[in-house]
Amino acid sequence: MSKLSQKHLLGIKNITREDLELIFETAENFKGVLNRPVKKVPSLRDITIANVFFENSTRTRLSFELAQKRLSADVINFSASNSSVKKGETLLDTVNNILAMKVDMIVMRHASPGAPHFLAKHINANIVNAGDGTHEHPTQALLDAFSIREKLGSLAGKKVAIIGDILHSRVALSNIFALQKLGAKVMVCGPPTLLPKFISQLGVEVELDVRKALLWCDVANVLRIQLERQQIKYFPSLREYSLYYGINKKLLDSLKKPILIMHPGPINRGVELSSDAADSAHSIILDQVENGVAIRMAVLYLLAGANA
Amino acid sequence: MSKLSQKHLLGIKNITREDLELIFETAENFKGVLNRPVKKVPSLRDITIANVFFENSTRTRLSFELAQKRLSADVINFSASNSSVKKGETLLDTVNNILAMKVDMIVMRHASPGAPHFLAKHINANIVNAGDGTHEHPTQALLDAFSIREKLGSLAGKKVAIIGDILHSRVALSNIFALQKLGAKVMVCGPPTLLPKFISQLGVEVELDVRKALLWCDVANVLRIQLERQQIKYFPSLREYSLYYGINKKLLDSLKKPILIMHPGPINRGVELSSDAADSAHSIILDQVENGVAIRMAVLYLLAGANA
Amino acid sequence: MSKLSQKHLLGIKNITREDLELIFETAENFKGVLNRPVKKVPSLRDITIANVFFENSTRTRLSFELAQKRLSADVINFSASNSSVKKGETLLDTVNNILAMKVDMIVMRHASPGAPHFLAKHINANIVNAGDGTHEHPTQALLDAFSIREKLGSLAGKKVAIIGDILHSRVALSNIFALQKLGAKVMVCGPPTLLPKFISQLGVEVELDVRKALLWCDVANVLRIQLERQQIKYFPSLREYSLYYGINKKLLDSLKKPILIMHPGPINRGVELSSDAADSAHSIILDQVENGVAIRMAVLYLLAGANA
Repeated sequence: MSKLSQKHLLGIKNITREDLELIFETAENFKGVLNRPVKKVPSLRDITIANVFFENSTRTRLSFELAQKRLSADVINFSASNSSVKKGETLLDTVNNILAMKVDMIVMRHASPGAPHFLAKHINANIVNAGDGTHEHPTQALLDAFSIREKLGSLAGKKVAIIGDILHSRVALSNIFALQKLGAKVMVCGPPTLLPKFISQLGVEVELDVRKALLWCDVANVLRIQLERQQIKYFPSLREYSLYYGINKKLLDSLKKPILIMHPGPINRGVELSSDAADSAHSIILDQVENGVAIRMAVLYLLAGANA
Repeated sequence: MSKLSQKHLLGIKNITREDLELIFETAENFKGVLNRPVKKVPSLRDITIANVFFENSTRTRLSFELAQKRLSADVINFSASNSSVKKGETLLDTVNNILAMKVDMIVMRHASPGAPHFLAKHINANIVNAGDGTHEHPTQALLDAFSIREKLGSLAGKKVAIIGDILHSRVALSNIFALQKLGAKVMVCGPPTLLPKFISQLGVEVELDVRKALLWCDVANVLRIQLERQQIKYFPSLREYSLYYGINKKLLDSLKKPILIMHPGPINRGVELSSDAADSAHSIILDQVENGVAIRMAVLYLLAGANA
Repeated sequence: MSKLSQKHLLGIKNITREDLELIFETAENFKGVLNRPVKKVPSLRDITIANVFFENSTRTRLSFELAQKRLSADVINFSASNSSVKKGETLLDTVNNILAMKVDMIVMRHASPGAPHFLAKHINANIVNAGDGTHEHPTQALLDAFSIREKLGSLAGKKVAIIGDILHSRVALSNIFALQKLGAKVMVCGPPTLLPKFISQLGVEVELDVRKALLWCDVANVLRIQLERQQIKYFPSLREYSLYYGINKKLLDSLKKPILIMHPGPINRGVELSSDAADSAHSIILDQVENGVAIRMAVLYLLAGANA
């Protein structure tokens, strides 16, 4: 069995190009499996995986859980909302307790950037970062890159614009790292208040005009405007955001060129993306969801193999 | 394999008599399976079912989940309370996302009447309505009819009184449709404020006096008074309800005739039904619960076959 | 197959010495299984177990759930927070409903002392008490005794001090019963306001000075100070508790003797136990967690056998 060069998937920043390609090839095989009537393989039959979610994330957790079940792993779900975490237990104690029950792998979502990296230094099991605050969300970046690769053949030389709330997004950073490693050119586009200050150090183009960004790119990855952050003062209002940055079919048609529209979900229809754009032939949003299960199967499978 | 004439179970209103009989025969077989030491059959081994509950319903969800596990299906649970629904996602986007993960069937509870019918027009998977607001709750009506049939041989010509809060009940409407299709005579009985205005158009008898209703019927299906609706002004108080409509053993004995007592649960003991009535030999309440798993196995099995 | 002399595990108070030894021997075998690559045995393949938790307890529920999955049982989880219990259903109705769905065994956590004993009188399934209020928590006592036995060979004549909030602990009582049945000498130690009045009737030593308790014992079982009970007036403050009863490495070193440190978790680091003590070579806290799965496998396996 081919192996990843590391035993965790903490982020995309430090992953090698070879590991990315190995994950993609493995995911292609699993995507074939998912399109068979029998979608289950016995690969991880003797592996127990705990999904440890300190923040809610139905979509990501379901995708991981399905990937685990398709691989025949045993799955336990731990959510912090009804747990000993509320009773003042430390992260390390919580995870060590779960591992003492003979769990082999931890998939973790945590509000604090770096939480999975901290864990990786102190525990022996494989860790998959399912999102650490506004830092990284590596499996999302992998499935995004995989979906572009599937449609355009390769990422080398392709132009990808990431549009929206870059500042609060854990998707943006992982995507930038993945796309650059795979040879794509990356632009970020959004209102200045939603662009992080360090963005210029990442080797990406910065564009404030969404139309110009769309004209430039082959692929637009449209991020979610997080309604729950609306209390922040300097933010443009939803109405303003929609007016200046919202993407609709009319705008896409006016570009007179092929373009792929992606979105990590959940969509705020009528805010960052209109329904006619989200449901247009440009959109590969549901391909992303389907590919998410295959990518997560590949990551879990390869990490389990890294122990062998 | 015999097939249902439709690919969804949205309600009882439009189901054929033949489909009802096919579901009952299949459920009889599965009830036999559930009484064996080995309660599992491999029928849906390659089917993935998502239980998508936008309203809490432990009892119905557990019954579906057990039915799915007995059929060897893969099961994922999605509850709206900790989900992207809160983040402003549309129903169709939520369900399309779940389906993109290669899910074959959706069991859905939703607060809005018609939600599963809307979905059925837009998605490709089988849908089972597990309750849509105060509209239909088809599997409850099926298990109720099946339980009567089991005790009395047939529903043809039998008299069934549905007693209680008809207005706010999703159970009443589905029951009326099922019972009438199977040849039973149906009466509804309750305080005038808890009877919907359209009730006279459904071809049922209406009775305000619970004793007269009990004297008339072979079977009394006693509905739950929903404590959580007590804020409604025109409602009789619980005390008044219990006094004028509550059913106890003394009342049942005074009828001097056989009568079956049913209840969809959870019972408010001492309100609509006294403990001595709920636990009497008249009561088939726990048979209903047992039959619920068999009926749901039959529905899921037949819908999966409808695709073949 | 060897059998327990009873069909439930309600508490340690009435369990026989022979049953304790049988559970330990069975757990030893299962601990061997848990350390194999293939951790699953088919023993309970045709058994369905419901975990019915009326109070949250992630740690205990996860341990039971893993034990059940390792035994190949079918598992359903019922938590009272989103259930018909809120709708006014009685405990007996809730459990009878679950059992009518053909469930074989109930693992129950309930806030009321005696709740599982009440159930055992009225239902036919096996019941495992996973904690009833401040009364008993038998599997915790079993795993604690098993962990001491594993380290010290036998409990006969060993001295065990239970330190902390004895009054509000369901762990203390079950531990006292188990340790005494196995021939150990037991001391309780804590501030007078956290010792129950009936403690002197249980045949245990009572000590107010934690240093004297540590000097006396071979094993210190340090209980959690329950932060959520801080509103109680006569309680020492956390700061006072930590100052007078907190155990740290310096204190342990000053004893100049071997001593085992146990804790049922979750630890309040810096309150009842300092980090350097919790992570010291004295600590067998993670052994307790590991043994918990083996003990619960043994209990479930033997109770299932008791029906045969």
